[in-house]
Amino acid sequence: MSSPKLFIPGPIDVSPATYAAMSRTMIGHRGSEFEALYASTQTGLQDLAGTSRPVFLATSSAWGVMEAALRNLASKKVLNLCKGAFSDKWFDVSKKCGLEAEKIQVEWGQPICPDAVRAKLAEGGFDTVTLIHNETSTGCMSDLEAIAKVVKSFPDVMLIVDTVSSFSAVPLKMDEWGIDVLLAGVQKALALPPGLAIFAVSEAAMERAKSMKNRGYYFDFVEFEKNAAANNTPSTPAISLIFGLQHILQTIAEEGIENRFARHRSNNALIHAWAQRHNFQHFAPEGNRSVSLSCFHTPAGFDQSTFIKNLKSKHNFLINGGYGKIKGITFRISNMGNETTATMNELIHAMDDVLATM
Amino acid sequence: MSSPKLFIPGPIDVSPATYAAMSRTMIGHRGSEFEALYASTQTGLQDLAGTSRPVFLATSSAWGVMEAALRNLASKKVLNLCKGAFSDKWFDVSKKCGLEAEKIQVEWGQPICPDAVRAKLAEGGFDTVTLIHNETSTGCMSDLEAIAKVVKSFPDVMLIVDTVSSFSAVPLKMDEWGIDVLLAGVQKALALPPGLAIFAVSEAAMERAKSMKNRGYYFDFVEFEKNAAANNTPSTPAISLIFGLQHILQTIAEEGIENRFARHRSNNALIHAWAQRHNFQHFAPEGNRSVSLSCFHTPAGFDQSTFIKNLKSKHNFLINGGYGKIKGITFRISNMGNETTATMNELIHAMDDVLATM
Repeated sequence: MSSPKLFIPGPIDVSPATYAAMSRTMIGHRGSEFEALYASTQTGLQDLAGTSRPVFLATSSAWGVMEAALRNLASKKVLNLCKGAFSDKWFDVSKKCGLEAEKIQVEWGQPICPDAVRAKLAEGGFDTVTLIHNETSTGCMSDLEAIAKVVKSFPDVMLIVDTVSSFSAVPLKMDEWGIDVLLAGVQKALALPPGLAIFAVSEAAMERAKSMKNRGYYFDFVEFEKNAAANNTPSTPAISLIFGLQHILQTIAEEGIENRFARHRSNNALIHAWAQRHNFQHFAPEGNRSVSLSCFHTPAGFDQSTFIKNLKSKHNFLINGGYGKIKGITFRISNMGNETTATMNELIHAMDDVLATM
Repeated sequence: MSSPKLFIPGPIDVSPATYAAMSRTMIGHRGSEFEALYASTQTGLQDLAGTSRPVFLATSSAWGVMEAALRNLASKKVLNLCKGAFSDKWFDVSKKCGLEAEKIQVEWGQPICPDAVRAKLAEGGFDTVTLIHNETSTGCMSDLEAIAKVVKSFPDVMLIVDTVSSFSAVPLKMDEWGIDVLLAGVQKALALPPGLAIFAVSEAAMERAKSMKNRGYYFDFVEFEKNAAANNTPSTPAISLIFGLQHILQTIAEEGIENRFARHRSNNALIHAWAQRHNFQHFAPEGNRSVSLSCFHTPAGFDQSTFIKNLKSKHNFLINGGYGKIKGITFRISNMGNETTATMNELIHAMDDVLATM
């Protein structure tokens, strides 16, 4: 049997058409063919990010850019907004970079409250805020627009937003909302194999980066901007993944962005309806639930491990049994990427089948 | 017409079998399937690097690890050994990281002289040396064993070696020669698409890394070691490239490492013989010429640009017209990766055909 089809919240299932695009004859990266490839990704990425700024392509996973944003922008004090495994870790990474950092810590599963951000920033001394829009470990999506509005009211504070599991699943308006760095990995809703991060940087953030010392080379935002002006990257790019990205952006253009958002909402609603039928309770509160993945409490007495194991062995579908300190006591199902009503229903019927035998 | 077959010195031609391996059903990276994949790469990589140390897989191009090695090991003064575009740039990167750095600069095309390294290190104050084994911009290979022996005689100095275009093309003996960090990208002799760097770190270097401040997270050697112990990576790995790497390592095992080295030597000799027939002069001196790529002076009056253009338009083969400040006045031909006598002769016949019409 082949490896199971992934309904874990990233990486997710990669389509044969994407792999075919990734298998195009290799090209050099210092020539017109690559420049055309690079250029072809810009409009699609800008539309998804809601920005007129260039969208850079980093040969790294998202953590590379999450750390880089701090090295390029933070010299006073970082405020890390913590609400799950990945956002909590960003606080640790701030300190590993030698930065002064404070955090707002909410219970896992809960969203970040904009008023709490306002109160904390009002204490003064901060120059950067980090937020994970859609915390993949808990399935909780914070109100990015409202938080951005708060941060925007502190003119010297830059907002760095990880949209790893929301990018291309929900509308993002980087320029309108005043986000300074918006970043994502491509192995979530874009349904590519991992290994490429995309990010855009506001003009103000780029100005600040220029004045920052010791930002190095590999993740230097100024180098990215300089190379992007020539449709290129500072270091050797992940060419096959960019071929794949080009393909995915074409499919998004064909589908229409609004249709894509609607498809994610309706696929997500199918999982919510399934959960309701079986009385599975959401981990995140209503109003702050991710539309790209769902995270549920494991009910008392429910043998989650057998459920997941049988779903895999009998139907070759893989869902996830929770992450970090909520492993086992939660489970997660992704509806990101290329899934349709039909493929979500295949998963749902398979899950029903397994539940019926438990 | 499809994109030309690449005989540029990286990225190079990627085989259909490699692409097929890269197109395997996507898997999650926090489970036993990925751990088995990761583990399957270790023996092959260790044999190629000549080390019993774990070989880490970084989601980045080589520059990421070239910079990371400095951030993990250098706090006093770096000595950058400069002999071409990439080794010269490493000196700039040292300074961009805020490090004190000096360099030994030799003329492009010339190798690094071990005695010069000894004399410089004897001045004192250095804690790291960077060397590019095979300078891809000039086709010049320095005597790594001899340089390593010199550096080894200064016990507090760590040797960081970029083997980007020599890895798997020539024997490397990291442990025996006393190299502290050995790194490579996979888009050169390993014939994978770019986007993955491999590196190994000596025990002494790992000990030093542990004491270094502000090494961050994404490229923290200590995090790599911790995760490698569980056959994993600190951040989301470039899974499709690792599937490809697994395939390439299998083909290397089937061919036999010594046979692979011999094949690179004989393919390289074919290009040398071709150059001799046409009186093209090597850019690097005899005894220090790369066996994975060749760099030639553009003869006076020779229309290099038309040669390369016609080779592409008529035969769909791409060679390279020089890099950096020797662009135009040199040209380069790769014989890295999966090439055989037959495929090298195809290129040679095509080049002869084009030359005959000039």
